[in-house]
Amino acid sequence: MEIDLNADLGEGFGPWRMGDDEALMSLISSANVACGFHAGDPLIMDRTVRLALQRGVDVGAHVGFPDRQGFGRRLMQIDLPELAAMVTYQLGALAGIARARGSRMTHMSFHGALGNKAAADPAWAVPLLEAIAAFDPQLIISTSSSQAIEGAAASLGLPVAVSFLADRAYDDQGLLVSRALPGAVIHDEERVLARVRRLLTEGTVATHTGNTLPMRPRSILVHGDTPGAVALTLRLREEIESLGGRIVPISRQLAHVPGATTSKQY
Amino acid sequence: MEIDLNADLGEGFGPWRMGDDEALMSLISSANVACGFHAGDPLIMDRTVRLALQRGVDVGAHVGFPDRQGFGRRLMQIDLPELAAMVTYQLGALAGIARARGSRMTHMSFHGALGNKAAADPAWAVPLLEAIAAFDPQLIISTSSSQAIEGAAASLGLPVAVSFLADRAYDDQGLLVSRALPGAVIHDEERVLARVRRLLTEGTVATHTGNTLPMRPRSILVHGDTPGAVALTLRLREEIESLGGRIVPISRQLAHVPGATTSKQY
Amino acid sequence: MEIDLNADLGEGFGPWRMGDDEALMSLISSANVACGFHAGDPLIMDRTVRLALQRGVDVGAHVGFPDRQGFGRRLMQIDLPELAAMVTYQLGALAGIARARGSRMTHMSFHGALGNKAAADPAWAVPLLEAIAAFDPQLIISTSSSQAIEGAAASLGLPVAVSFLADRAYDDQGLLVSRALPGAVIHDEERVLARVRRLLTEGTVATHTGNTLPMRPRSILVHGDTPGAVALTLRLREEIESLGGRIVPISRQLAHVPGATTSKQY
Amino acid sequence: MEIDLNADLGEGFGPWRMGDDEALMSLISSANVACGFHAGDPLIMDRTVRLALQRGVDVGAHVGFPDRQGFGRRLMQIDLPELAAMVTYQLGALAGIARARGSRMTHMSFHGALGNKAAADPAWAVPLLEAIAAFDPQLIISTSSSQAIEGAAASLGLPVAVSFLADRAYDDQGLLVSRALPGAVIHDEERVLARVRRLLTEGTVATHTGNTLPMRPRSILVHGDTPGAVALTLRLREEIESLGGRIVPISRQLAHVPGATTSKQY
Repeated sequence: MEIDLNADLGEGFGPWRMGDDEALMSLISSANVACGFHAGDPLIMDRTVRLALQRGVDVGAHVGFPDRQGFGRRLMQIDLPELAAMVTYQLGALAGIARARGSRMTHMSFHGALGNKAAADPAWAVPLLEAIAAFDPQLIISTSSSQAIEGAAASLGLPVAVSFLADRAYDDQGLLVSRALPGAVIHDEERVLARVRRLLTEGTVATHTGNTLPMRPRSILVHGDTPGAVALTLRLREEIESLGGRIVPISRQLAHVPGATTSKQY
Repeated sequence: MEIDLNADLGEGFGPWRMGDDEALMSLISSANVACGFHAGDPLIMDRTVRLALQRGVDVGAHVGFPDRQGFGRRLMQIDLPELAAMVTYQLGALAGIARARGSRMTHMSFHGALGNKAAADPAWAVPLLEAIAAFDPQLIISTSSSQAIEGAAASLGLPVAVSFLADRAYDDQGLLVSRALPGAVIHDEERVLARVRRLLTEGTVATHTGNTLPMRPRSILVHGDTPGAVALTLRLREEIESLGGRIVPISRQLAHVPGATTSKQY
Repeated sequence: MEIDLNADLGEGFGPWRMGDDEALMSLISSANVACGFHAGDPLIMDRTVRLALQRGVDVGAHVGFPDRQGFGRRLMQIDLPELAAMVTYQLGALAGIARARGSRMTHMSFHGALGNKAAADPAWAVPLLEAIAAFDPQLIISTSSSQAIEGAAASLGLPVAVSFLADRAYDDQGLLVSRALPGAVIHDEERVLARVRRLLTEGTVATHTGNTLPMRPRSILVHGDTPGAVALTLRLREEIESLGGRIVPISRQLAHVPGATTSKQY
Repeated sequence: MEIDLNADLGEGFGPWRMGDDEALMSLISSANVACGFHAGDPLIMDRTVRLALQRGVDVGAHVGFPDRQGFGRRLMQIDLPELAAMVTYQLGALAGIARARGSRMTHMSFHGALGNKAAADPAWAVPLLEAIAAFDPQLIISTSSSQAIEGAAASLGLPVAVSFLADRAYDDQGLLVSRALPGAVIHDEERVLARVRRLLTEGTVATHTGNTLPMRPRSILVHGDTPGAVALTLRLREEIESLGGRIVPISRQLAHVPGATTSKQY
């Protein structure tokens, strides 16, 4: 059993930092790097890419709304052609920085309110994934479970990898419960670990209404900006390995899949 | 005799426009596209790339300081590693948009105060061109005449193309006279045309002190944001053609040069 | 009959301009000045305030979402306490610039998507108007007809002045029809003038469904960014005067009203 | 002996924080609040103003370059009329927020590279202080020792209060040694306290060349963003009180001075 551990990194801006990127980078296999719209800036992106390269961690673009002040967490009603261009811009910017460091960008994921909207609404998911496919038809789409995104990726031939958010409640459709609602974020470390154990052994998640949802993710997402994130990630790794799992980035998991190809971006 | 005609395009932002991109795009052979730092935004970049593709015009990145309010025209004392990351970010963003449209980015040039500083100071030119070479060692550096930039490009093996700014005064070192000084911008259309004629027939420019400076540019830069820019560009084309010249983008000029290679970016 | 003519001015940013502020400023009695969030910047605000002072035109704050790229025209789901602070910030900034020029800010209006949302939803109008009342309980609220805004202003004791948008279609509730819908903007100059004539003589507007809506505005809003805006404004003035009306800023209209007070801001 | 303790607060942006504003606010007598250009945003400004009001701390504007990414620490060559408008804009924004909370803004200081430039160059200090005087002729100018700023304030009749930066090296002209130079920031807590003791008992500072510089500041500036800032501030307070001093905000110190008036801003 191979599973990817991924985290959102590079979420500082200018003089400000968020989370302990150095410590987390030693524990994960894939990094989702903010691209300067909701967080991140060129220097931070460059540092994060170099750190990932040193630790053998996959680099992906974490793409968000152009709203640093709101950290990309509030919905903006941007026309889809403009939003698609914003997605491409962010992908290109990170791909360029990776390329300049002799690395390559393996995957992308949507951040915050953009991620929630794209996951819930095919009218957003389809044009945004079309833009991604036009940029690189082999870029891996890393996403929480979502019919809209998984469906659009499948129809466009984009490789997709579902990520499990161990500390977030799910509804019965497999969508994340909004952060604005009580119980959306699970703060109890033991409960988070128990959810991962159940996922890896039974392939299911308990939804917030108590139902059982089947889920076979390739990846588990760790939130780097919560207190205790580094300690929790360490325990997650141990849990996975004690269950016989191996931490492997998605790009290498897909390389084993017959017929699957991954980005030859540069 | 082959000569490129290039202009700075896509210099709007959000609801604002600058210059008549549509009209100019039909007259030039290369477009320098603002990348969202001093001007431009993803949607405008996308439109400009598509327009260039329709008209067979080369697309390059016009890279500037992160200062839309000052239009990249005021010096910012940014540390060079950070500035180098900003250059890479802008290159990647435009390259990504070009790639998503099935095009490719052939060249880059520096805008405004960043261009003036890099042209005058090797301590800026060298690390910035190193960043460009790390991104794409075959990207053409389009620049006004500058020992700092031409020297750095030569030592890094980057292809370079000197551009002549027909409506700007030159000093005896071949650097542009600062816009802040009187006479820096030549508004008289007949004088502008006479300067081009002299350049093409004699290979020289009269400096602002009245000296004669040899110059063999591959390109002539047209300023799209001045009144009458379209009419002047039309007359420039006619002048060049009546002297037996042909308007050819730099990437195709260099393709004729034995040993020269150009970007295979994507 | 006294009527105010107002327009949204100072809608440039950095090197970019929108509309002919100089020409319009000679024709109107009140200016709504963008405060740097959806448009405008300190230098443009300062110039606009000085121009208004020269022409004896009232200065008000045109308050919008923090989104220059979208010109404040797309909805942002900002938490209301944060949005209220953004409103106060913009009011303070323009009031400060007016004060430094020996002028004062007489009124405010909401711009774009913020204006549409506040006009339609008391849950937005009330906290935003509470913030305005805390800043200056005598600042005039200039608004298109809206039960939400007029009601909130009344309950807070804020002076309110309804503005008629001569070139925009109204629905049966007196709200503006969304720009996204066909027929929302009336481009025909004769129709615009006929609407003003009917308003001034009969006190009614024809809604987009053909119903008759009573309306007694103190002001007529002119859109400065449409082609022909200056010529249309000139004809509007003539029309108003030929009907016996006088162009008087709202602050002076209210000064005649017994019991009404206006801002003693500074 | 009365002395003010002031600190730069509200230096977060959107989701990011800097320093422990809550803890510091209980220890100081004046807060310099970032106004959204180099740091801060409307919500953070509002929170900081309310916190200051609760603790009886004076509120002032900390005015900087429009460069969050560089935290206002890099020089920008902005034309002085535009920069003056930016200063007024920031003053107005904070004054507006203070006013809406029933407070008032008592003072201002320049931040970072803008502060260094204004302190060193009368060609910058004079027009910027003219803009401040036009906004409020009784606003207190809080500054590190600077002939340029103190001279301009004196000639404009603006009240001025010199602040001592206990952890920063001074040159022989009383200007701060640039952060880029070694020894510019004094990290040793005992040395910082010894410098304050010498200042309060002898009225002198040892410059970085070892000379003795007389200085009679009304205020001591604490840097909130350095590790151990809260503990150091606590020790500073104890030191001052053990020497018989009292912590009193500048506005109240000046209220004792015969003839001195302070802002009646609102």
